Amino acid sequence: MTATALETDRHRVVIVGGGFGGVYAARTLSRQPVDVALIDRRNFHTFSPMLYQAATGAVAPSDVSQPLRKMLRRQRNARVILGEATDLDAAQRQLRLSDGTRIDYDSLVVATGTQPSYFGKEQWREHAPGLKTLEDATEIRRRALLAFEAAEREPDRERGRVWMTLVVVGGGPTGTELAGALAELARNTLRSEFRTIDPSEARVILVEAVDEILPGWPEFLRHAAREELEQLGVEIRTGTRVEDIGPTHVDVRAGSGVERIETRTALWAAGVRPTAFGRRVAQALAAPTDRVGRIVVEPDLSVRGHPEIFVVGDLAAISDDAGETVPDVAQKGIQAGRHAARAIAERLRDRPSPPFRYRDIGDLAMVGRFRVVARLPLLALTGFVAWLLWLGVHLYYLNGIQTRLVVSMRWAWSLFTSGRGSRLITGTHATYGALPPIGSLDGSTDLPGVGDRSAA
Amino acid sequence: MTATALETDRHRVVIVGGGFGGVYAARTLSRQPVDVALIDRRNFHTFSPMLYQAATGAVAPSDVSQPLRKMLRRQRNARVILGEATDLDAAQRQLRLSDGTRIDYDSLVVATGTQPSYFGKEQWREHAPGLKTLEDATEIRRRALLAFEAAEREPDRERGRVWMTLVVVGGGPTGTELAGALAELARNTLRSEFRTIDPSEARVILVEAVDEILPGWPEFLRHAAREELEQLGVEIRTGTRVEDIGPTHVDVRAGSGVERIETRTALWAAGVRPTAFGRRVAQALAAPTDRVGRIVVEPDLSVRGHPEIFVVGDLAAISDDAGETVPDVAQKGIQAGRHAARAIAERLRDRPSPPFRYRDIGDLAMVGRFRVVARLPLLALTGFVAWLLWLGVHLYYLNGIQTRLVVSMRWAWSLFTSGRGSRLITGTHATYGALPPIGSLDGSTDLPGVGDRSAA
Repeated sequence: MTATALETDRHRVVIVGGGFGGVYAARTLSRQPVDVALIDRRNFHTFSPMLYQAATGAVAPSDVSQPLRKMLRRQRNARVILGEATDLDAAQRQLRLSDGTRIDYDSLVVATGTQPSYFGKEQWREHAPGLKTLEDATEIRRRALLAFEAAEREPDRERGRVWMTLVVVGGGPTGTELAGALAELARNTLRSEFRTIDPSEARVILVEAVDEILPGWPEFLRHAAREELEQLGVEIRTGTRVEDIGPTHVDVRAGSGVERIETRTALWAAGVRPTAFGRRVAQALAAPTDRVGRIVVEPDLSVRGHPEIFVVGDLAAISDDAGETVPDVAQKGIQAGRHAARAIAERLRDRPSPPFRYRDIGDLAMVGRFRVVARLPLLALTGFVAWLLWLGVHLYYLNGIQTRLVVSMRWAWSLFTSGRGSRLITGTHATYGALPPIGSLDGSTDLPGVGDRSAA
Repeated sequence: MTATALETDRHRVVIVGGGFGGVYAARTLSRQPVDVALIDRRNFHTFSPMLYQAATGAVAPSDVSQPLRKMLRRQRNARVILGEATDLDAAQRQLRLSDGTRIDYDSLVVATGTQPSYFGKEQWREHAPGLKTLEDATEIRRRALLAFEAAEREPDRERGRVWMTLVVVGGGPTGTELAGALAELARNTLRSEFRTIDPSEARVILVEAVDEILPGWPEFLRHAAREELEQLGVEIRTGTRVEDIGPTHVDVRAGSGVERIETRTALWAAGVRPTAFGRRVAQALAAPTDRVGRIVVEPDLSVRGHPEIFVVGDLAAISDDAGETVPDVAQKGIQAGRHAARAIAERLRDRPSPPFRYRDIGDLAMVGRFRVVARLPLLALTGFVAWLLWLGVHLYYLNGIQTRLVVSMRWAWSLFTSGRGSRLITGTHATYGALPPIGSLDGSTDLPGVGDRSAA
């Protein structure tokens, strides 16, 4: 049971989760006399604010991600461990991985984020994937592109229309950006690429339970976003609740009646909850949680009764100075991760850890090509200037200069040309076999246009 | 059974396969009075000469591929069909897809290429994947990167060495380039990224049954390639046959003795055979085939007895003017695809189709960063000048200017920095669960370096 190699007498900081919170916590500790171990199930960090771009083919998956080892290669006090944390023994200060490996810590930073939540309707998951991981983005890309391929091959116009109806559930920033990008994909990118269908006739429907999209944003921007989306042809259904999701339908209720939207491509951006390890941490520490299960942290981001354990990022329920809940955006993870690292450094010097204060630097949402709505501390912006700002901010935070250069080029190109070069249908079900047989219902097996002419 | 929409009275050319042969055939027909349908199981073309770069993370999968619809969007007489051809009724001039769809043709171009062949040892496939598709590249990338992750977590040095032994079977251009790229990955890219292992201690072993790598190339270049590879630290085992491949070993025979190479990462670049549809075509047409099953075509690339059916690309066995077999390189597909299209155009005008003549414009192999060996019609090159040539040629043939720009940037960057930004471990088994539990054999479950210090 002896440890080898890097055995250390220094303070051991173990960080679980390689998102914004975990990575910024690790980096902030680079000059501290500690040993840092960053644990993630994946070998890469995902730049989640641009996931919807990968989901619609505008950028490649590797453009919005970066190997964790590369990000930390020069930080000699940090190591990366590919592993899945499953349990926590706070009394022993020991973390357990899925393969039984135990890892001791002196300080622990938990930054494992959230996953899509279906409000207890887990059966909806297979019909309406969420957008939290790079695999999710690839899966959404696959489904959206296969829908157009199926419509192209579908001889029955009514069934073709079902294929060309895309439903996004949830009108927050993710759902709004995704709906806008799907509309751009259909109306601009795919234009001229099909011979039977006209992709610009596709319907993109954005369903939101409350009365407005981007709830919590200033009214001026909510209206601007709605206008931009409607110009792109997105049908916005606010005040509309999802009642059921199946393989070929989304049932919605607005007022008293239930309406069935026939679709084979539903996407979920409506709710989240902590991942399994985050829930396990809350349980093991008997920590207070909010409505969706986030851990309510102490002012310094530690967990009540466990000053050596910090929770940062989307897993943490944090309030700002006004008592408002800090939204789950990248800045929350970045700022909280840095704060937890500084709190650990202060404690090492026997100094008290200061309270966390969230600095609201605004929100940005890109709802279409050059169409951005921005909320800044002192002003609100829409249109092209907001887009330039959005571009700069996103490129600034994209880690690694190679990625930044390549993404900016690829992206500028795709914006100006409507091209989306990363439209690959890959994965287990990527080949034609994933499509339903054409004409399986009415006995016709001919392809429109290149069919059995001699038999006609 | 009536066809709709694009029903046509024009000559119908159906092309199966969206590789070099199929795409160049389709494009060459752009100004002809024909209707072209290009059928592929995938929605994208793969730039196969750079697959090994994607397999080692130097470029993203979408950098070496392009949506077929995008490539043909401006060609109004062409359409793309996502589908899998399974059978051929040459008497009815009808193609059948896996879902039962029938497609009539007047001329047929078969360009379905080859897949890895394991010489009847199909059980080797799961232990030693080949490199023919984009998914293959992602799988090889996953295995190679996971091997280093496993070695980093492996407390037992001997087992760690097994993880860090990579075996490439087959010393043709693919195997040679892959071995060189893996050595670069280990020695340059991954340097400084691990804390327990030193990736530059990894062994990359290239096994080739005949006496020299790059068989068929001029001796000067074969020696140059060997020298370059050896400088990179690749162990070249020529005159060495593979006897068995299992989950943790490759058994090889050189002379009389069998040696066991312990490895968990074997890759296959040793043999190919036609895909299932190509074999079906050969059978259905009773076409002559060569040793590995390629269809021996007539001088105009049609199939004996079927002047309306052309076979191009790797599926075709073609001889050059000197009677030598044309090797399976991109140029073979490009030139043959163009020729088949021209032959069809000539026939439409009741003119005879001319015989195909392969123009040997040389071979290029990149065996490492800036290390290229080039065989040209009039001269042979090695080193940096050859590399510049290689770069130009590959970028020229990469389809689409966006891809060309982005790839050249990403690539120049990765060459000069040894960075490989596309090192994502994705797919079904991409998470930590794909790794074997550490220490499962000796009862130790501690991680080197961050282990159970208090228990030590």
